[in-house]
Amino acid sequence: MLLAKVIGTVVSSRKEQSMTGLKLLLVRPLDAEGKETGAPVVAVDAVGAGPHEVVLFATGSSARQTEVTTNRPCDAVIMAIVDSWEVGGEGKYKK
Amino acid sequence: MLLAKVIGTVVSSRKEQSMTGLKLLLVRPLDAEGKETGAPVVAVDAVGAGPHEVVLFATGSSARQTEVTTNRPCDAVIMAIVDSWEVGGEGKYKK
Amino acid sequence: MLLAKVIGTVVSSRKEQSMTGLKLLLVRPLDAEGKETGAPVVAVDAVGAGPHEVVLFATGSSARQTEVTTNRPCDAVIMAIVDSWEVGGEGKYKK
Amino acid sequence: MLLAKVIGTVVSSRKEQSMTGLKLLLVRPLDAEGKETGAPVVAVDAVGAGPHEVVLFATGSSARQTEVTTNRPCDAVIMAIVDSWEVGGEGKYKK
Amino acid sequence: MLLAKVIGTVVSSRKEQSMTGLKLLLVRPLDAEGKETGAPVVAVDAVGAGPHEVVLFATGSSARQTEVTTNRPCDAVIMAIVDSWEVGGEGKYKK
Repeated sequence: MLLAKVIGTVVSSRKEQSMTGLKLLLVRPLDAEGKETGAPVVAVDAVGAGPHEVVLFATGSSARQTEVTTNRPCDAVIMAIVDSWEVGGEGKYKK
Repeated sequence: MLLAKVIGTVVSSRKEQSMTGLKLLLVRPLDAEGKETGAPVVAVDAVGAGPHEVVLFATGSSARQTEVTTNRPCDAVIMAIVDSWEVGGEGKYKK
Repeated sequence: MLLAKVIGTVVSSRKEQSMTGLKLLLVRPLDAEGKETGAPVVAVDAVGAGPHEVVLFATGSSARQTEVTTNRPCDAVIMAIVDSWEVGGEGKYKK
Repeated sequence: MLLAKVIGTVVSSRKEQSMTGLKLLLVRPLDAEGKETGAPVVAVDAVGAGPHEVVLFATGSSARQTEVTTNRPCDAVIMAIVDSWEVGGEGKYKK
Repeated sequence: MLLAKVIGTVVSSRKEQSMTGLKLLLVRPLDAEGKETGAPVVAVDAVGAGPHEVVLFATGSSARQTEVTTNRPCDAVIMAIVDSWEVGGEGKYKK
């Protein structure tokens, strides 16, 4: 999984039918210091994440192992909201 | 999934038989601002996407979770056409 | 899938038994202009591709969805020979 | 698998239900010399790894092939603690 | 698959039980000229590879399609030892 921040939302009305009703969020991976890094990914939200929230997302076939994404053409899912993380005992983020 | 723009088409008459009849589009990923970035990918079109359209594509085994791609040697599929997206409340794209 | 050019061949006599008889080709991905780019990949040939031919290859579990690669430890397969592609209406390659 | 060092921990109380009870560790890949390199990954701990320990982690669907991660939306798992490694006969790390 | 050279070995006594008895080798990908390139990967050896040998390794779920790796948390496997390869008719490596 990768640490990421929810930076936006994506709207799509014409899509594979099985994707209907899923919330699509734009996330950007974070480095260990919490800095946004790399390219944005569109992930299905499985946990009720909101804007600016720090989350974990899983990719690949593992992204289909949630209740809302089973058997769907979904390769990225937000499966946790992050409360906090620390590196070497030092808190780097707290919700 | 990644935001991408349909930039072209690919024609192949000699291919694995199960790929017959599938439309192959050339897409380029977009960054959060809508700028084309990175290498082009050939994706099967599952939603009737047209040239220059902004789409989402899924990769890996998830690319086989659409009606047209099941059990096919397809590792990238366009599974949604994007209406709009926003970052931090600011619209970045509207169809 | 990625556009690629067949640049060479690989010979291996000692291998996982299920790989016996499969043709191993060295391919290099192409960008939208047809320029070779990035690192070479060894792909199983499922469509009778020849040297210098432009092909599509699929990776991951999708590389096992051809008749010759099912259940084999194969993560890249050439599943189409490219006749042509165009970008923005302009032909970039024709066989 | 990649060599990696456990650099921290991640806490999440709101997550996909099947992830409950799993320990989430922050790891950074190591190069052959043992230097931390690249972006951090959040991996489920399947072997009781501690802070600063050198481990192996597996990604993708293989990350679900441990007792604790089966059928979970987990795409990275620590599945071994490293005792030592050597390159060209020269020890590079010993626990 | 990627061309790679076996550059070392990894020892782990505490690991997911299903990994017991598997040989873990450190490999580095090779470019088309045979030069080591990119980050090292730890792969399970399915074919009896030795130090300095040139091999092919497969990643992802395909790494579980060998007799020794089935259902194991293994995302990289050495599934062939390379005898030779050529690019454009010119031999680049011969064992």
